[in-house]
This record gives sequence, C-alpha cells and structure tokens, in this order.
Amino acid sequence: MKRKVFFISDRTGITAEMFGQSLLSQFEEADFEELTIPFIDSVKKAESACRVIAEAEAETGLRPIVFDTIVTPEIRQIIQSSGAMVLDFFHTFIGPLETELGLSSGFRVGKTHSLTDGKAYDSRIDSVNFALNNDDGISTRHYNNADVILVGVSRCGKTPTSLYMAMQFGVKAANYPFTEDDMENLRLPADLKKHKQKIFGLTINPNRLHDIRTERKANSRYASLKQCQYEVREVEALYRREKITHLNTTSRSVEELATKIMASTGIKRQGF
Amino acid sequence: MKRKVFFISDRTGITAEMFGQSLLSQFEEADFEELTIPFIDSVKKAESACRVIAEAEAETGLRPIVFDTIVTPEIRQIIQSSGAMVLDFFHTFIGPLETELGLSSGFRVGKTHSLTDGKAYDSRIDSVNFALNNDDGISTRHYNNADVILVGVSRCGKTPTSLYMAMQFGVKAANYPFTEDDMENLRLPADLKKHKQKIFGLTINPNRLHDIRTERKANSRYASLKQCQYEVREVEALYRREKITHLNTTSRSVEELATKIMASTGIKRQGF
Repeated sequence: MKRKVFFISDRTGITAEMFGQSLLSQFEEADFEELTIPFIDSVKKAESACRVIAEAEAETGLRPIVFDTIVTPEIRQIIQSSGAMVLDFFHTFIGPLETELGLSSGFRVGKTHSLTDGKAYDSRIDSVNFALNNDDGISTRHYNNADVILVGVSRCGKTPTSLYMAMQFGVKAANYPFTEDDMENLRLPADLKKHKQKIFGLTINPNRLHDIRTERKANSRYASLKQCQYEVREVEALYRREKITHLNTTSRSVEELATKIMASTGIKRQGF
Repeated sequence: MKRKVFFISDRTGITAEMFGQSLLSQFEEADFEELTIPFIDSVKKAESACRVIAEAEAETGLRPIVFDTIVTPEIRQIIQSSGAMVLDFFHTFIGPLETELGLSSGFRVGKTHSLTDGKAYDSRIDSVNFALNNDDGISTRHYNNADVILVGVSRCGKTPTSLYMAMQFGVKAANYPFTEDDMENLRLPADLKKHKQKIFGLTINPNRLHDIRTERKANSRYASLKQCQYEVREVEALYRREKITHLNTTSRSVEELATKIMASTGIKRQGF
C-alpha cells in the first residue's frame, strides 16, 4: 500500500505542492500517492477534507501526510486535528519571523502569489504576450523592448525557456532561430547585430537534437543526425566567433536554464 | 533602510523564492530588498554568500533574513553561521519526516524539480508545444489529443492560462477564440461540438476587456466598450445555452484559473 500524501491549501495548492514535493523527493525509496485539495477556505470544506484524510488512513492502514499552506488559524487547526502527520508551512515559520521583525503577520488568505493586484501580474502577462509575439523570429521589430533575445537552432529549447522567463520572472524574452538556410556562411543578421548585448545563445547535443526532431518529422533531412551535427557545429562556431555567451540545454531543466540566463545577463527578476 | 532578504539555494532558487516570498507577503507593512543567490553548491560559494550577507548587515544596520533550500548539511551550516536570521526549509521538515517514515533522506542536491530526467519533464515540454501549436484556434486537428479546450473572446486570458496549465501541470490545453465574425448568430463550430466535453469557457468583465484591448489597439472598433459588451454578452449567452462550465478571469490570477479548471474538469496533474 502506498502512503497517501495530501497538499492542502486555501488557495491554488501550488505552493503546498512545491513545499511537499521538494521534501518528498528526498525520500527516494518511499512510494506515495499524492492528492491536492485546493481552495479549503471554510470550516465546512476543512471538515470535509478531514473526512477524506480519515478514509485514506482507513484504506491504507498508514498514517497520511499532509503538507498545508493554510493561513487562517481556525481552518488550520481543523486540518491539524485530522489524525494525519501535518506539516504546516505558515505556522512553522511565521512565529519566528514575527519575533525577528517585531511585527504581526496579516494572516490573510491569498496574499501569496497575489498576482491579480496590479503590476507584477500585468508585467508577467505582458511578458508572456511579448514572448509569443516575438517567438521564433516572427518579428524583430520589438527587439528594442526585449530584455533578452535567445538564439539557437530549431528545437534547442528557445520557446519554453522564453515562456518560462516570462511567466516566472516577468522578463521579456524574444527568440530567434538559426535555420538551415542560414547555415552556409552563418552570421548574425543585421536585426540581431543591433541588439548584440541582449543576445544569449542556446546549444544542444546533436544526438538529443536528432531525437527531438525525429519525433517531429521522422526521416527528414531536418531530423537527420548529420544535419543536426552540422547546424550545431556552425552555430557553436558563431557563438565563439562573436563571443556570445551560451548554454547547453541538453541536460538542463527549463527552470535551470532560465535562472542561469538571469544570473549571467544580470536581468532583474520581477518576482512572482 | 530596507531590510535585506536573501533566497539562497544550491539549485535555481525558485523554491527558495516561493518559500520566502509567500511568508514575507504576510508582512504587509514591512519593506524588504530581495536578492536571490542561486547555485550555492560548494563551500567556497557558500563562504562568498556569507560575505554578501555580512555586507548587507553592515550597510543597512539591520539583520538580514535568509530563506534557504540547501540540501547538503555542510553547506547549510556555513549559511547558518552567517549572522543572518536563517530560515531553513529542508532542515526544518526533513527530521520529522524521517521519523514518521522510518527512513533516511537522501540529502541530494537537485532532486527537487528534477525535470531533466525523463517523463514529467518531457510531458511538460510536449504540453507547452501543444499549447503553442493549438493556440488561438490556429489548428483544430489535434483536439482529440487535448485534455481541455479553452474558449472565449479575444484577450480574455486563454493563452496565458493554457500555457500555465502546460508548464505547471503538464496538461495539454488548446484554445479557441470567438471572434467578431462569429458573434452574429453565435454557436459552437462543428470542430468544437465534437469535443464538447472538453470545452471550458472563459469570460471577462467588459470594462476590463475594453482596457486590455485599448492597450493593444486604441480607438478601434475591436477595443470599443460597446463591442466588448456585445461580445461578452453573446458568449455568456452561448455558455448558458450550451451548458458550458465557465469562469470569469477578471480578478483571478493565472494560477487560480488553471487550478480551478483542473478541479472542475477533473484532469489529473502531472506534478512538477
């Protein structure tokens, strides 16, 4: 029987999942069944969550584990009484922070990721739209508004990285592909040259690129290992020639790529 | 002087930021200056982070606050000795979890969000590509592979929501706009009708829509309040007629929209 794990929140449950999963990932041998219960913002809902937890214990014979990010003390106490092992995010840290700051906390639901109110949120949505409107070299007209321009061969990871940067950091990331037609005598197009200080290169292992492109267009010249090797070689040579900072995407997550690009370029995060 | 806050991690720092910012957001009156220090994965880097922390204290006269998600005990101890108030994510919770599970944790760096290894990561990237390839009704051919199809008027929030669902939950979300041409005699196009059980409607306050469209195309018919009111009225009538579940995006964050859609449709999250 797998032990049941619950992520419980008065909001979306995304922080609770992150909180719990990053801890559970440290226990590789253990096997869990995970369930998120979001929007527990009333006594009634909390009591109904407790019943689900009790059923999980009856079913598995194992004490469930609860990771919660509930702000309201009254609702949190109901979850605490569920019989599960409850690891409580706010309760654990708010006390010490209140002491250190000499302030009382607001205990207000929905203040984490309060994206709706104003600037941070608008900036992220603007940035997502920017990434979409400036994806794949569709347009180069707005490069003066870009924080960064990611370049690289087709399918090396430019689009997910620019979207992630927009969504997580509110950063305006355009991206521009070097295509097959560019390869013979590869150089920076004039539109890019003008914004050279904003360019950041991505590269990838040719074998991995071959796999990705094969998935998309099997048995094409585009996907052939030979073509992948050729394009990667030419693009990496360009990076060296033009002294373009670059990263290999092959074994890096989008999070890691985005963070490294932020650190390397010094672009400021807009926060959540 | 603002008190300085550091988010320190041996990886990207994204969990550390989420950890710290969700707590700091409970202290509305306080004013912080935030800095993320990612990739602190050696003794040398940890010592250099300590120097930055000490300088912050000397500069502001206020004890800095550190939120860290460092896994390795040796490196964590160096940060603990920095003189700051250190709130440590792993150290706080891993002990109780080890006791409860009767297991030792792995203390392995980079196991949180280990997206690179395999399925979860590929599924998220696939889903981002799916969202992009099926954005804005560009193509309806792949709707049989979609987990959900978001519909609504132009600029009501479909694209960011489908991208967020892809990125956070690995869910394949297509989206389809009802345009001005559709409005007179609005009904579900045949391509959508076939997949009616997958359709989820978005709507928006006409005044907010007017603001958003004005930003994009000022003084156009498209952006006029009258047109916005008309489109929203027609689309909401369609939702009622066809009994399409729908949400108003006006004062909801993308996270909240995505989570509510997941809960309402019962689509399973793919985890991080």
